[in-house]
Amino acid sequence: MQSVRRKIIGVMGGGKIPEKDLEIAYKLGFLIAREGWVLLTGGRKVGIMNAASKGAKEADGLVIGILPGRDSSQTSDYIDIQILIGMGAARNNINVLSSDVVVVCKGGAGTFSELALALKNNKKVILLDFDIGNLFDEYLGKNLFKAKTPEEAIEIIKKLI
Amino acid sequence: MQSVRRKIIGVMGGGKIPEKDLEIAYKLGFLIAREGWVLLTGGRKVGIMNAASKGAKEADGLVIGILPGRDSSQTSDYIDIQILIGMGAARNNINVLSSDVVVVCKGGAGTFSELALALKNNKKVILLDFDIGNLFDEYLGKNLFKAKTPEEAIEIIKKLI
Amino acid sequence: MQSVRRKIIGVMGGGKIPEKDLEIAYKLGFLIAREGWVLLTGGRKVGIMNAASKGAKEADGLVIGILPGRDSSQTSDYIDIQILIGMGAARNNINVLSSDVVVVCKGGAGTFSELALALKNNKKVILLDFDIGNLFDEYLGKNLFKAKTPEEAIEIIKKLI
Amino acid sequence: MQSVRRKIIGVMGGGKIPEKDLEIAYKLGFLIAREGWVLLTGGRKVGIMNAASKGAKEADGLVIGILPGRDSSQTSDYIDIQILIGMGAARNNINVLSSDVVVVCKGGAGTFSELALALKNNKKVILLDFDIGNLFDEYLGKNLFKAKTPEEAIEIIKKLI
Repeated sequence: MQSVRRKIIGVMGGGKIPEKDLEIAYKLGFLIAREGWVLLTGGRKVGIMNAASKGAKEADGLVIGILPGRDSSQTSDYIDIQILIGMGAARNNINVLSSDVVVVCKGGAGTFSELALALKNNKKVILLDFDIGNLFDEYLGKNLFKAKTPEEAIEIIKKLI
Repeated sequence: MQSVRRKIIGVMGGGKIPEKDLEIAYKLGFLIAREGWVLLTGGRKVGIMNAASKGAKEADGLVIGILPGRDSSQTSDYIDIQILIGMGAARNNINVLSSDVVVVCKGGAGTFSELALALKNNKKVILLDFDIGNLFDEYLGKNLFKAKTPEEAIEIIKKLI
Repeated sequence: MQSVRRKIIGVMGGGKIPEKDLEIAYKLGFLIAREGWVLLTGGRKVGIMNAASKGAKEADGLVIGILPGRDSSQTSDYIDIQILIGMGAARNNINVLSSDVVVVCKGGAGTFSELALALKNNKKVILLDFDIGNLFDEYLGKNLFKAKTPEEAIEIIKKLI
Repeated sequence: MQSVRRKIIGVMGGGKIPEKDLEIAYKLGFLIAREGWVLLTGGRKVGIMNAASKGAKEADGLVIGILPGRDSSQTSDYIDIQILIGMGAARNNINVLSSDVVVVCKGGAGTFSELALALKNNKKVILLDFDIGNLFDEYLGKNLFKAKTPEEAIEIIKKLI
């Protein structure tokens, strides 16, 4: 038998992000779902996670939320499948391991840890509209790619998977 | 907005189980999917995990596999969504936390750890055709229930969720 | 150079244990320290963990506490080295992985999960004054041993390490 | 009773570091031990971890290694207490949670993840001779401090704990 396994695109990004920077995550989630890929996020009802999840649901996608806690009090309404890790920020390593490609949007220290863990785990990573200076330049073109728009990120993902 | 979150039923059980004892897990997976619930298993292509996943797929269900390792080498072909934990047996705690109800079928030390962790985490647990003597009798009728058939397990789940 | 690494004996057991059953854990901790071994416990200031830690400190031993939480609010005063796992019951797998030999005293579901995880991880385990019926009898004399007194447990450990 | 708990200083840094950059980690480990603090590292026998551990042992300190794997094959000879996490890079979160202060030396993606996780977990962090541009400048003087020499790092730690 052929495996029924589906491709998973992880979208990482901060919880405290200005409204105007959320549109890009919403659009990315929408486009990921329209390609038939599963969206994986950190699952909370804030920031990039919530916006990308909302976008994917509006394109009838399937959304997996990998929550840091032990209950659903923080879970976005746009999550179909809630995985409760109960490990705080250690769940960030699971987010990146479980994604076929990781897209990193704007964020703070938590998002940076996901970017760094993704590279450490040898994952393919796309930075979307997120300027990190020349940090991690040694990975560029190998495991790290930069995109300015969700459409550009989708094109890169298509080449990677 | 209403949450789109779906109910998740976890099915735990051993990897090395005689063929004749797998039919019950296959049937359970089938019935879980037919109820519209998501099936969650340990995700490997052996024993109870594989049989329950196969059953759920044959009823067109959605199957989540929570894998202990970092890659797909052990993943059952009947898993739609592969979550790679990369933590060995520590993933057993995630299996039970993420399940709305946990059904425990026959198994060895790993399965016992899931049964114990489920009770420790205050989850509702159904023992299906698995005799553990009078161990954990203090939980009976509160968090622990016993079923002889998959149909009986389904009836108990309906009351619990 | 020779490694400076020290032998670690893990002592597991319940948090809610009658006073009269704590004496055995206290004595075990004392004897472990007197042998020059490091004591590892779950680190909380209750039950078997606290009693064994107290015993080890009174014999001038070194005590490592592997705490489930993220801060020291639950930590026993008899812990020298506090390791904060921040993962709830998933820390139970770390307790057993990090111990050269695991001694399991009386306890509930959490303690059972440690016993099961220890066997699953192929560790040597001693049940001390803890009747679990004939559960796990298939491991007896291979990875599982039974002791009635702390002195007997110490003799078994000496043979195992 | 007073708690016997000891202060733990975590030293993070890369595994592949030029010989000439290891001297500073060696010196830091030495000075940490001379202050009577416990040294915590990632425990492997390479790079910053190994150099800091060696320094601490030569000042008769106590060294805790938090290893990513499940066995001692990678463990530095200068580790007294080996904690086996068995979780790959997810152990990085445990390193920072368990440290009273985290010192971050030169390193790659793994070290960056520890820096980010430390800030995410609200820990006090000292960057030692490690230029990260103006990344995380918003934490400077609050949770993030910069030192050029081990002696300077020690002075900052004294103020923080």
